[in-house]
Amino acid sequence: METKKYFLDDASLPEAWYNLAADLPEALPPVLHPGTGEPVTPEDLGPLFPPALIEQEMSTERWIPIPEEVRELLLQWRCTPLYRARRLEKALDTPAKIYYKYEGVSPSGSHKPNTAVPQAYYNREAGIRKITTETGAGQWGSSLALACSFFGIECLVYMVKVSFNQKPYRRAFMESFEAKCIASPSTTTAAGRAILEKDPDCSGSLGMAISEAVEVAAQNDDTCYCLGSVLNHVLLHQTVIGQESMQQMEMAGEDPDVIVGCTGGGSNFAGIAFPYMGRGLRGGKMPRIVAVEPSACPTLTKGRHAYDYGDTAHLTPLVKMHTLGSTFVPPGFHSGGLRYHGMAPLVSHAVKLGLAEPTSYNQLETFAAGLQFAQSEGILPAPEANHAVVGAIREAERCREEGKAETILFNLCGHGHFDMQAYMDYHDGKLRDYDYPEEEIAMALAGLPGVNG
Amino acid sequence: METKKYFLDDASLPEAWYNLAADLPEALPPVLHPGTGEPVTPEDLGPLFPPALIEQEMSTERWIPIPEEVRELLLQWRCTPLYRARRLEKALDTPAKIYYKYEGVSPSGSHKPNTAVPQAYYNREAGIRKITTETGAGQWGSSLALACSFFGIECLVYMVKVSFNQKPYRRAFMESFEAKCIASPSTTTAAGRAILEKDPDCSGSLGMAISEAVEVAAQNDDTCYCLGSVLNHVLLHQTVIGQESMQQMEMAGEDPDVIVGCTGGGSNFAGIAFPYMGRGLRGGKMPRIVAVEPSACPTLTKGRHAYDYGDTAHLTPLVKMHTLGSTFVPPGFHSGGLRYHGMAPLVSHAVKLGLAEPTSYNQLETFAAGLQFAQSEGILPAPEANHAVVGAIREAERCREEGKAETILFNLCGHGHFDMQAYMDYHDGKLRDYDYPEEEIAMALAGLPGVNG
Repeated sequence: METKKYFLDDASLPEAWYNLAADLPEALPPVLHPGTGEPVTPEDLGPLFPPALIEQEMSTERWIPIPEEVRELLLQWRCTPLYRARRLEKALDTPAKIYYKYEGVSPSGSHKPNTAVPQAYYNREAGIRKITTETGAGQWGSSLALACSFFGIECLVYMVKVSFNQKPYRRAFMESFEAKCIASPSTTTAAGRAILEKDPDCSGSLGMAISEAVEVAAQNDDTCYCLGSVLNHVLLHQTVIGQESMQQMEMAGEDPDVIVGCTGGGSNFAGIAFPYMGRGLRGGKMPRIVAVEPSACPTLTKGRHAYDYGDTAHLTPLVKMHTLGSTFVPPGFHSGGLRYHGMAPLVSHAVKLGLAEPTSYNQLETFAAGLQFAQSEGILPAPEANHAVVGAIREAERCREEGKAETILFNLCGHGHFDMQAYMDYHDGKLRDYDYPEEEIAMALAGLPGVNG
Repeated sequence: METKKYFLDDASLPEAWYNLAADLPEALPPVLHPGTGEPVTPEDLGPLFPPALIEQEMSTERWIPIPEEVRELLLQWRCTPLYRARRLEKALDTPAKIYYKYEGVSPSGSHKPNTAVPQAYYNREAGIRKITTETGAGQWGSSLALACSFFGIECLVYMVKVSFNQKPYRRAFMESFEAKCIASPSTTTAAGRAILEKDPDCSGSLGMAISEAVEVAAQNDDTCYCLGSVLNHVLLHQTVIGQESMQQMEMAGEDPDVIVGCTGGGSNFAGIAFPYMGRGLRGGKMPRIVAVEPSACPTLTKGRHAYDYGDTAHLTPLVKMHTLGSTFVPPGFHSGGLRYHGMAPLVSHAVKLGLAEPTSYNQLETFAAGLQFAQSEGILPAPEANHAVVGAIREAERCREEGKAETILFNLCGHGHFDMQAYMDYHDGKLRDYDYPEEEIAMALAGLPGVNG
């Protein structure tokens, strides 16, 4: 039984990104300056981002045109395929129809180049010569390295030290595109040195790596900072995923009842969900939208919706989001891309407004689901994507129990070819589940800045 | 400057494989029985292969229909994209137009599933429950594991011991599809035990792993053997690559003057080259066709065109091919897929007839070319594919020197996401070139069976 593919030609690549801010029934709370507590101005963000990205970050325009040069680069691997998972449906004996959008065909194997390319483009347009960023598992760093090489921009990546040591292959990938990769915390920044002074053996976190990357960008005129998730403009760039999916689902003669995505910072989830959410807000059909996170880093399901910093050293502005506290360091589970203390403000806002349902799964359950998917569909997902897979499978099982032939769409945001150590550990029985880190989260939440927006 | 993509819809997937044997001006020498020295009959091959594959192996029909179920499975990732490498052209300052076909979008990241799927299909049709095979670097074993999981067939992979130890991630990939992976030489077969008795520390070779896989298949009625390259039917299945390329080059308004592929066993090379070669033999335009091999395993450039065994234990039939001698063990360079003592008989025959030009490059030059390609085009090639890249780049440089605007087409047969150790070693200066292994080859050639076909 075939895995049915729905294909789009180049002309179907969206000509504009979709901005959810235009359709929200209640505006997103403003971003606040970390010093003054006042809403940030475009000038405040100038040292970190080029003007076009600041404008996108603050825009409430519904459609933001994709520059032609960016579209041409995206077309190298887009439009990405959308599949009906008929063999998985059969294995699950479910009346549900399961569709998935597959972003693993990009040159770095995930959805991240969708935003890396436009971010590098706008920086090049603004005359920026060097970009700093952070990376956890390495998907984002790899994608930005790639995009910077397209535009001849120098790329400096602060990689969380534990991943730097555990995932040398990701580093080798970045270096193949001439990016420079530094283990964070490092002695190259004041933020890094302060952390190492307190704890010389510190293994790092995304929050710390962001502090280092932001510090370098803020101090150098020719240098800007890029983030791989969380921010409005990053989520915006991912909406090509959902817009393409809409066209492909129409080709299939279906409209999803349930959409499932995994959430770390929120970008791939927003990419598939926001165009449907916006259509619902404008009076069209509104699907159920399920956000799946790891139960060891349960930002949406257990965090607080409050103003917090994006980084550990508190160099970033304050954003209102679901957070576990900026000092929370998640346990070492294998979905590095989902190990962040916060959540995109737009995703947090949508959850608060009841537009999306958060849920969480523990590590072993996600790997078991990923392998069941692989054995049916032939694609081995990244550990992050396994969270979307388990979410979709549970929905399909619910449909079986309820006897409902619902249509489920999920985003398979990347392949697992760089994550074989995790699968090897799983096969060898070395992976484990994690208890809900209740005390650590309570401590980190106690340190929230206590700002009311 | 964009990397221009030429895309085909599902309806463009070829409906038949192209068989070069139909158009050869001189027939391929027969395969000989290892015991009698007489041409093998279909019955002789019965213990190893299902009837449909034996028929394809011996067929001289020009077009062999692709079963609908196989086409549907291939459509999961086919048709694959063909690109014009405009940024690479610019970097090389060449008047040549460089096109490449990209097979890395398949679920195992290479061209190998093109034949793994039909081989598993025909075995399932013949009621076979279990398939044995060998693998070097793991591309083939991964692809067969995937295909067997589609058809519910058990898969047993003998993996060359040095790769088994060096590439645990490839093994983890195979195990994710429930294949069983054994380090070869092993104690599970008589061939393996005999080798280990002589040399308990033997690190294995493809020839040895083939002996083990063939032995298991020959001794069990419900078990057949699959090979990932070399044989006629394997090359046949890869011709979808060249047939699609022809359609895509027509869309681009071009016809290649030069076609470049890398050669290990010959299958990806045949895939892109044979449809063009056949067109030339039938009176159409005949491009120059360049076969690139590693200079440390120079089968076509330094081997002898003679009858030889495909394996070390001499369990396989005798085939006339370019060979370095079945006891030759290539040095440990990083393109595991190109480390085979022999070459596909059809490719060898084509070279002998002057239809293809063999050439060779040493390891460091291939990696440098692969990185130049990656930095221009954004795709990091597998080390095997780097041989095609360096071949294409050298042709483009020749065009620059000669002031000729030729059209070059090469096959980028896989991505390098599983090969990051090799790139890491290259970045760290740990890779080296290899001298031509003159003495070892002379010794191995002295042991040729001396059969005249």
